[in-house]
Amino acid sequence: MKRIAVDMDEVLADFTGKCLEVMNAYVGTSFTKDDLYGKTVNELYPDHSDFLVEVVQAPDFFRRLDVIEESQSSLKRLSEHYEIVIATAAMDVPTSFQAKYDWLLEHFDFLDPRLFIFCGDKKVVQADYLVDDNIYQLNAFTGRGIMFDAPHNLPNDYDVRASNWLEVEAYLMKELDSSTASKSDTNRTV
Amino acid sequence: MKRIAVDMDEVLADFTGKCLEVMNAYVGTSFTKDDLYGKTVNELYPDHSDFLVEVVQAPDFFRRLDVIEESQSSLKRLSEHYEIVIATAAMDVPTSFQAKYDWLLEHFDFLDPRLFIFCGDKKVVQADYLVDDNIYQLNAFTGRGIMFDAPHNLPNDYDVRASNWLEVEAYLMKELDSSTASKSDTNRTV
Repeated sequence: MKRIAVDMDEVLADFTGKCLEVMNAYVGTSFTKDDLYGKTVNELYPDHSDFLVEVVQAPDFFRRLDVIEESQSSLKRLSEHYEIVIATAAMDVPTSFQAKYDWLLEHFDFLDPRLFIFCGDKKVVQADYLVDDNIYQLNAFTGRGIMFDAPHNLPNDYDVRASNWLEVEAYLMKELDSSTASKSDTNRTV
Repeated sequence: MKRIAVDMDEVLADFTGKCLEVMNAYVGTSFTKDDLYGKTVNELYPDHSDFLVEVVQAPDFFRRLDVIEESQSSLKRLSEHYEIVIATAAMDVPTSFQAKYDWLLEHFDFLDPRLFIFCGDKKVVQADYLVDDNIYQLNAFTGRGIMFDAPHNLPNDYDVRASNWLEVEAYLMKELDSSTASKSDTNRTV
């Protein structure tokens, strides 16, 4: 069974959405994700970066993120054909460990916690695929990357992209077919 | 640069030592590691396993472990030739995340926290070598395993074993030489 590594922030958990909500309330702005093309929330509020760091480092910040649309149902279906691991760069925000773990248990209770990975650099993740929004992590990963659309990565060039979970699922189900087809081909040749 | 993944408990951190100290004090025994051949501390105290679980799950238990002899100096020297990642099955004790992270920062401050991996099953770790005391993890890992002696694993058969960090270091420095030698061989052939 092939293995898919799945990032959390922006891919399963709406990190940007919660940051925007809090910053709009704090600063008195009304930005939406459309204002973020090619930018992180931090770049949208250059004068408030210390406050944003405080927000993200609050012990329960990651516990309060919304689930990205379709991620639960698509991952559940994919888990019948692939081994699913969750790979999140939690070492970047060490205060987030418990909140991220509890969030996963609540929203993805069909996944095996022994296959959760809290890491920093995803070059250390052993998997066939990685679904991630971060170009640095996708380039560091040694398997096949799938870039999940997020406002900040829209200007990035990347060969396999998905703008939502149904597209991720369709791509990976097709990969499964080609892998089966190429196996049958091999059998035929033999 | 090749990558070594290093386990924490029993390899860098004296998990068994602290468990024994606490259990001896609690139960009124005077067991030493010599009494543990082929056994875990849990198996030594079958009537007190609930208490032992409480001890290990205490939020600062892993913060209080002693450092395994020579591990700091050997890893520091190895880090000049290899990329070092720490791979610990923290998902087995989710209350341990912060304590394990803080312990590593204190005792291994020369390592890069972006290369710490909190996981469950080490089959998801991408590295060339794994130094670990656990036969299950060594068998799950896809690279070359080095079994680090711990009382519970002494009866296990495993082809590459080390009884201390100087032996781990010697093995890995020799591997480096053979890898350089085989590269020169390749060059000679070309």
